[in-house]
Amino acid sequence: MGNSFGTLFRISTWGESHGGGIGVVIDGCPPRLPLDVKEIQFELDRRRPGQSEITTPRKESDTAEIVSGLYEGKTLGTPIAIYVPNGDHRPSAYAEMKDTFRPSHADFTYQSKFGIRNHEGGGRSSARETAMRVAAGAIARKYLLGQGIVIRGYMSQLGPIEIPFKSWDAVADNAFFSADPDKVPQLEAYMDQLRRDQNSVGAKITVVAEGVPPGLGEPVFDRLDAELAYALMSINAVKGVEIGAGFASVAQLGTEHRDELTPEGFTSNNAGGVLGGISSGQPIVAHLALKPTSSITTPGRSIDVNGNPVDVITKGRHDPCVGIRATPIAEAMMAMVLMDHLLRHRAQNADVTVTTPILGQL
Amino acid sequence: MGNSFGTLFRISTWGESHGGGIGVVIDGCPPRLPLDVKEIQFELDRRRPGQSEITTPRKESDTAEIVSGLYEGKTLGTPIAIYVPNGDHRPSAYAEMKDTFRPSHADFTYQSKFGIRNHEGGGRSSARETAMRVAAGAIARKYLLGQGIVIRGYMSQLGPIEIPFKSWDAVADNAFFSADPDKVPQLEAYMDQLRRDQNSVGAKITVVAEGVPPGLGEPVFDRLDAELAYALMSINAVKGVEIGAGFASVAQLGTEHRDELTPEGFTSNNAGGVLGGISSGQPIVAHLALKPTSSITTPGRSIDVNGNPVDVITKGRHDPCVGIRATPIAEAMMAMVLMDHLLRHRAQNADVTVTTPILGQL
Amino acid sequence: MGNSFGTLFRISTWGESHGGGIGVVIDGCPPRLPLDVKEIQFELDRRRPGQSEITTPRKESDTAEIVSGLYEGKTLGTPIAIYVPNGDHRPSAYAEMKDTFRPSHADFTYQSKFGIRNHEGGGRSSARETAMRVAAGAIARKYLLGQGIVIRGYMSQLGPIEIPFKSWDAVADNAFFSADPDKVPQLEAYMDQLRRDQNSVGAKITVVAEGVPPGLGEPVFDRLDAELAYALMSINAVKGVEIGAGFASVAQLGTEHRDELTPEGFTSNNAGGVLGGISSGQPIVAHLALKPTSSITTPGRSIDVNGNPVDVITKGRHDPCVGIRATPIAEAMMAMVLMDHLLRHRAQNADVTVTTPILGQL
Amino acid sequence: MGNSFGTLFRISTWGESHGGGIGVVIDGCPPRLPLDVKEIQFELDRRRPGQSEITTPRKESDTAEIVSGLYEGKTLGTPIAIYVPNGDHRPSAYAEMKDTFRPSHADFTYQSKFGIRNHEGGGRSSARETAMRVAAGAIARKYLLGQGIVIRGYMSQLGPIEIPFKSWDAVADNAFFSADPDKVPQLEAYMDQLRRDQNSVGAKITVVAEGVPPGLGEPVFDRLDAELAYALMSINAVKGVEIGAGFASVAQLGTEHRDELTPEGFTSNNAGGVLGGISSGQPIVAHLALKPTSSITTPGRSIDVNGNPVDVITKGRHDPCVGIRATPIAEAMMAMVLMDHLLRHRAQNADVTVTTPILGQL
Repeated sequence: MGNSFGTLFRISTWGESHGGGIGVVIDGCPPRLPLDVKEIQFELDRRRPGQSEITTPRKESDTAEIVSGLYEGKTLGTPIAIYVPNGDHRPSAYAEMKDTFRPSHADFTYQSKFGIRNHEGGGRSSARETAMRVAAGAIARKYLLGQGIVIRGYMSQLGPIEIPFKSWDAVADNAFFSADPDKVPQLEAYMDQLRRDQNSVGAKITVVAEGVPPGLGEPVFDRLDAELAYALMSINAVKGVEIGAGFASVAQLGTEHRDELTPEGFTSNNAGGVLGGISSGQPIVAHLALKPTSSITTPGRSIDVNGNPVDVITKGRHDPCVGIRATPIAEAMMAMVLMDHLLRHRAQNADVTVTTPILGQL
Repeated sequence: MGNSFGTLFRISTWGESHGGGIGVVIDGCPPRLPLDVKEIQFELDRRRPGQSEITTPRKESDTAEIVSGLYEGKTLGTPIAIYVPNGDHRPSAYAEMKDTFRPSHADFTYQSKFGIRNHEGGGRSSARETAMRVAAGAIARKYLLGQGIVIRGYMSQLGPIEIPFKSWDAVADNAFFSADPDKVPQLEAYMDQLRRDQNSVGAKITVVAEGVPPGLGEPVFDRLDAELAYALMSINAVKGVEIGAGFASVAQLGTEHRDELTPEGFTSNNAGGVLGGISSGQPIVAHLALKPTSSITTPGRSIDVNGNPVDVITKGRHDPCVGIRATPIAEAMMAMVLMDHLLRHRAQNADVTVTTPILGQL
Repeated sequence: MGNSFGTLFRISTWGESHGGGIGVVIDGCPPRLPLDVKEIQFELDRRRPGQSEITTPRKESDTAEIVSGLYEGKTLGTPIAIYVPNGDHRPSAYAEMKDTFRPSHADFTYQSKFGIRNHEGGGRSSARETAMRVAAGAIARKYLLGQGIVIRGYMSQLGPIEIPFKSWDAVADNAFFSADPDKVPQLEAYMDQLRRDQNSVGAKITVVAEGVPPGLGEPVFDRLDAELAYALMSINAVKGVEIGAGFASVAQLGTEHRDELTPEGFTSNNAGGVLGGISSGQPIVAHLALKPTSSITTPGRSIDVNGNPVDVITKGRHDPCVGIRATPIAEAMMAMVLMDHLLRHRAQNADVTVTTPILGQL
Repeated sequence: MGNSFGTLFRISTWGESHGGGIGVVIDGCPPRLPLDVKEIQFELDRRRPGQSEITTPRKESDTAEIVSGLYEGKTLGTPIAIYVPNGDHRPSAYAEMKDTFRPSHADFTYQSKFGIRNHEGGGRSSARETAMRVAAGAIARKYLLGQGIVIRGYMSQLGPIEIPFKSWDAVADNAFFSADPDKVPQLEAYMDQLRRDQNSVGAKITVVAEGVPPGLGEPVFDRLDAELAYALMSINAVKGVEIGAGFASVAQLGTEHRDELTPEGFTSNNAGGVLGGISSGQPIVAHLALKPTSSITTPGRSIDVNGNPVDVITKGRHDPCVGIRATPIAEAMMAMVLMDHLLRHRAQNADVTVTTPILGQL
């Protein structure tokens, strides 16, 4: 039951890292949306590893096929199924995982829960599953774009290095999703050293949605911020989520934190675009913290399936920073949350005449 | 649709701050659980304002009545309805809210969404709704306690003041839910000054569940940590959620972050008790950031319903730090997430023989 | 979990026959719908027993109170809670039920499921619960009426007596909900004899929705007819549901059953207004079969809680035909299904330009 | 959203009749269930057309592939994805459907709802989708069998010909799923004549589950009988569902209908194994009515997409009685409802000690 996401725009992902393939079924997409598989592939390629020296040399073909829900280039309103057969299959690389629980991985907990696991490449717990979120998110993004909503993300910190926001234009030009082109050499040098040290590091990603109309969200539990927290925390390796000022709010005074309203718009955005669980019309801003890659070649202590102590080295081909490829995933999750709430809002409130003044954009 | 929470242990809350009352319906509670309304009242009283100088002088009677689902002191397995009639009703105190959107409140967004709002005391957006979460959470906590699971929280930071954990015993003895009794005078002095300054401040709360067996949670979207993030972010004023090391993970190296396993147990708990979305048997640890109370008497700029600029002073009786009363709410939300996942796990895996070694507790 | 109904217009009912009261929470109702408690009371009174000689002399006050979700006579878009305190309480009348499983009642199965039950008046299994469906349905009916959708029902068979449809106007003028005023004396005579015989009988109800636009429903599982079947079968004592020609379809030829289309409209309505799970624009027609009242004073064999054989006479005050009061309940359930699908359709297809020709009404 | 079924054992189907293929994702299956694709293929072959003279000569290969969720022959507890690529593809046979709404088909309503449709072979509305229900149902059936629950169905009426139940053994030996071998020649003669007449006819199917323990189901809305009605009515062409005595209950007296209890068991089964929405331990019995095949070669009146009158002959290769292949589908739907309620019951009541006497089997 835990493999579906969303209420009205609802996706169900399936597949293991090294099984027959991975896929996603998207139910509830509005009909007659023009869609080309290339639009999905474009987003998949942004997430794909093996593209630069800083990510894993593992080649994942990730070639998506749309096997249902399209007719003459438009969505039918019925389920869209996307299928990516598994390519570069090397289970022998994972043989020793069979009897050992790798530290900071899901091996121990999957075995505890199910009494069985596919140990090859992490099976269902592999980050490969997130490719299907990106594929489904590409459809949500396209629909939202037609409504004037733009969703973009960037890496705002790599290990100890904070990366300031300079320009959206810079993001696509480097493998780090850095919005500051001048930081890229420093980031590359840091990663080189990390690889030599056989270590890994965490990262912080920032995602922003602009053009979101006021009114999306729900009052109490399914608040827009609560659903974003759920969506972003469900990404592999994420350990924290902030909306707007986030943890900085703890030390803020009320006079500092509150975003004042003027006829020209809000004067600041500590709220991150959400008040009382509902979008305010300001940009939605979320930050997420990703832990360091668990798979490193520096040996660590663990136990085997019989409870005996062992030393573990995770072979295989892994990113030294999983956060580097997380930006497109975070964008996809935010897109799907907004898409879902756009539909939910429309269902209940389609015949509401908006009675709030239209604010300028400061 | 957004007023229900949980999949199998499912609650629906209703009511406005100043309407006929507030209530909650709990569906899916196991039958034959001995339950006394006093056990619910005990938790409600922990959350209740008006109990000390540091919280709002507003008296909320919050007297709960169980109107269905109990028979001869035991749960029936059918819906438990809890009802708290509203008492201390002073709508005149809120008259000026009618035409003004208070900064950092949900006034503007509710009006945008619904084209109508009950402005008295915030209506549905009032923190009064959280009393019903605490009431429902009391039942989850009792059931979990019978399974050996203990859930406790404390305030870990008030504005700029970090509050170290010293002892669970200290928490009940002060109005701050401080686990360090020696910090209390400093906290009191800080709050006194804040009140004199007509200002408010944020806070950080930490919640811990001990005795959680390995295996609770779901692999992909409904991960235990994702559902905790959703649950905790849905509490009024929360702007950030962390599991385990949280945002500190960003700057950690893989060798630092990973919790090694030994036959005696895990050597650390950066994971916060969750790996791959599933509980590991370690304590579940979550932190949440709450923004400063929005209702302060220092004037702020805003607009009225016609879009004209106005100055706003929020009268009424408000806590200078909403975080102070958030500990029981956070405990309740964590309890309901764990309760729900206990039932979900049992449904799918009741006939699984656990095959992981039993770890010692370091 | 089984006490909620609907996806977007979602109700949760609670309460036992002889507990503190019964209630319902309605989530997802569009905002700014003018609503008066009298509109709800009007429908409740149509279902209420004790109004004529042919139904139970038991008086149920059924006085509804709206305790949340309304503001200045309009819905807020947040949960509407309705509460009916229990009145005429005579648990002593039910004392002997405590240790006996009454035939054709839920006593045995509730005890099997939960290991506990409130035996007084059937507890949660009492038809009293359906009052809350009628209350919630009244809101759905009002909203649908504003969209031009009218929902009406009548009794089409009482025991062996078929009751032809003559006029909607007749229905409100007799206690049987007969659409043929000339049949009423025969029905009264039949009921008199039944009471003298200390027996009960079944009934068939027909419900019709007119003005439903084409396009409501879902393709595969949540078909409009499937959800109607679910909704109507969930009413106490219902044993069968038909859409359109229903079981008569079994012996029909394809040439007989198919409803031909002409520019002036469909030539017949064997489909009952639903094709492929989606409304066609024709009237939605459903029939439901209700079993005879289980509570009769003719002794029957049963067992007690220890498994010993006993003779059971159900005392208390019961309708000799539960079907008589079922018409408003069936109307309410149909209203809520249509309301839910109206919102679901709007969510996904609000921006669809309808491309089917507009058919005339034959 | 309407393409998923079930709460805890949850399936999502996708695919059109003549697209890239059809598939199903099954979430929530207990782990470590031994499973072989042959077990799924066995059930698919029972539903497959083209196997005898009485069904469509269209060959559907329906070769299932399990692409995720299995490891070394056992279920992993994570999603099981089954994929059936489309084979015998003849879209030209359907060219004329493009601009015409066939009577008694979903063409008109899909176009109304979505403003677009895949007209080839009915697209998503094709009965081909039910193959995926049968595939998923095969897994539920296997699990239930391990719990002692056996689900079987048979055709109980073909057009005007009632088919008495004689023996389960007979069912597999004839293409009609007749439980009376002596009726088969009459059924064959009837079908021959029907084909010569270029006509079609309806059918009635009966499905029975034996070995269901008491206690499965939910009290109010998600009653076992209500969910069966939903499940069975969601099958293409079904127009009516009965539980136990069904519509015969209308004319029954209370003394006739009630199933008395004795220490040896119930004396009859008018209830069809469900009391108050919960299983009683008796066999669960459901009947369903299927309308005649809509696709017949006798011309019928309809309109084209511009609203002009046209005569329609449905070419293509179709069963003269869709009911003939419905038995395995109905079995699959009943299996999934029971599977889901087994898990739901276990979640809430796993620690209940059953306190009802164990009844003998009369």
